[in-house]
Amino acid sequence: MTDMLHLSPEALESLSMRVLRHHGLDEAHAGAITRVVIAGQRDDCQSHGVYRILDCVRTIRAGKVNTAAQPRLVDGAGSIVRVEADFGFAPLAFERGLDPLTHLARRQGIGALVIRHCVHFSALWPEIEALTERGLVALALTPSHAWVAPAGGRRPALGTNPIAFGWPRSGRDPYVFDFATSAIARGDLELHRRSGQPLPTGCGVDAEGRPSTDPLAVMAGAMLTFGGHKGSALSTMVELMAGALIGDWLSSESLDHDAGAKASPCHGELILAFDPAVFGDSAESQARAETLFEAIESQGARLPSQRRYAARARSREQGIAVPRALYQEIQALAPDA
Amino acid sequence: MTDMLHLSPEALESLSMRVLRHHGLDEAHAGAITRVVIAGQRDDCQSHGVYRILDCVRTIRAGKVNTAAQPRLVDGAGSIVRVEADFGFAPLAFERGLDPLTHLARRQGIGALVIRHCVHFSALWPEIEALTERGLVALALTPSHAWVAPAGGRRPALGTNPIAFGWPRSGRDPYVFDFATSAIARGDLELHRRSGQPLPTGCGVDAEGRPSTDPLAVMAGAMLTFGGHKGSALSTMVELMAGALIGDWLSSESLDHDAGAKASPCHGELILAFDPAVFGDSAESQARAETLFEAIESQGARLPSQRRYAARARSREQGIAVPRALYQEIQALAPDA
Repeated sequence: MTDMLHLSPEALESLSMRVLRHHGLDEAHAGAITRVVIAGQRDDCQSHGVYRILDCVRTIRAGKVNTAAQPRLVDGAGSIVRVEADFGFAPLAFERGLDPLTHLARRQGIGALVIRHCVHFSALWPEIEALTERGLVALALTPSHAWVAPAGGRRPALGTNPIAFGWPRSGRDPYVFDFATSAIARGDLELHRRSGQPLPTGCGVDAEGRPSTDPLAVMAGAMLTFGGHKGSALSTMVELMAGALIGDWLSSESLDHDAGAKASPCHGELILAFDPAVFGDSAESQARAETLFEAIESQGARLPSQRRYAARARSREQGIAVPRALYQEIQALAPDA
Repeated sequence: MTDMLHLSPEALESLSMRVLRHHGLDEAHAGAITRVVIAGQRDDCQSHGVYRILDCVRTIRAGKVNTAAQPRLVDGAGSIVRVEADFGFAPLAFERGLDPLTHLARRQGIGALVIRHCVHFSALWPEIEALTERGLVALALTPSHAWVAPAGGRRPALGTNPIAFGWPRSGRDPYVFDFATSAIARGDLELHRRSGQPLPTGCGVDAEGRPSTDPLAVMAGAMLTFGGHKGSALSTMVELMAGALIGDWLSSESLDHDAGAKASPCHGELILAFDPAVFGDSAESQARAETLFEAIESQGARLPSQRRYAARARSREQGIAVPRALYQEIQALAPDA
């Protein structure tokens, strides 16, 4: 049984800010990162919670992020908002692009937010939820590090390349999914390695291309995509859309740049936002979506993100649970208050 | 060994036009359908080739399509082109929207083509290729008939909901994928039923929700999505984007409308087009994409659609192969020339 602390958002925020400021991030960057990792911890996403503060610090120490970066809007064109993150962390870049993207989607029906040259460590659902809170439908794609072989291959060529989508629901938690196109998330692979547990079958191959359930062998070989050739095609689409199309790095380039530092990946991000009110009648589209959700839930199937929302409700009541050992590890990175 | 005829595109075109005109379609509709089914036959997509002429005729006879429909552009807004198909067949509606969508994507970077109330029987890749031929990146989504259970469920709530994507390659066949989000295509399920072959595992459940490989049992129960909960989430996204968002039917509504007629589904379609030249530097994005394709192919993995392109090359040399029995079945639907 893990020894857990239950903390207020304010206590966690103060810890996160202290660590990140101490490692050279300004108030704006530290604040944006803190909001994202606390949201993850609140939702019991251990792999995208305050644990990521350790990643941020490692990335800073490895010199793989521009701590002085000032993400700025650059010349967008048409339905595209472009934020140059200048090799800084992604969360602030997203926050800077959020209002312009919202305006664009409301005016044009669709907007694209292109973030270039960001160091990326977060889940995509916080960004998706920021858009669904504004009544927008959202789709987000990013490359990562090239750890994943294409279907029929044996060598890494693709990232874990997440796809996230959100649909706003009035008065309810939004419909949101956010998953890696790899069969297993990199964080889960890492957890299996640490615990010595074998992987489920179908997650990876060893360096000779043979199916393997050994985490170390898969790390030396390649991870596989979910869903065979279909997942592989989707992962390729993520590289093309959120890499080649927007003029930013592929997952292979991000991994080359990392050069063994094990820092967070550096690449771009593409976020599309759609305004149902421009596409048609919002009330009608809401009603139809609810019919679908009802058809899914009434047969005992679950909508995605329900586990997160349940954890969120728990955190509101009991405080945010953080493993004591993790808390202490983070605390050790900060100077005493 | 199936007895095959090898026909010129002109001979097939003349047959298709004769049948479709005879069943009440005007020159424009018959022409658009003919182009799509001949492309499918040429690429050896038997389930989306001239076989679909039989579907069209069945749908016409069932009174489930408006043969007099004149698809027309209606008030689009912002980055959206809208075509009202008026319950006619989809291919002409797409052709009518193609130029405006292209203009929009070139001006704004992104355009959406919304087709509403179309009777849909075709693969999506002909539409994707029409856009990649113009140098655009394309993503297309449609619902279908509700035959597919969500992950964790046992009753149909989703369609086979294809997702198709294309990336233009200069001087080469485009990168294109087009797949059902169901574990098996409906046409393949039908082929298994006819041949009495068991399905691969994981394709469906019987009426009691138990995993089954019996095509008849799955038809009475439900098909499953590919890739477990991830495929199920993507399929749900297709319903939301190409149904609820655009103000058109869900797959469940399409099936209700069908009322046992076994006609082609009736719903909407969402096609997004992206112009790399507006997003950034086309040459750079092309070069980066080619780096990725090379990383995939150099390890012996295949890009999607290669089987189609090989068949296309064969058809150019040898004529288009059509099973003799199918040819005769289609011919029997036409008055003698």
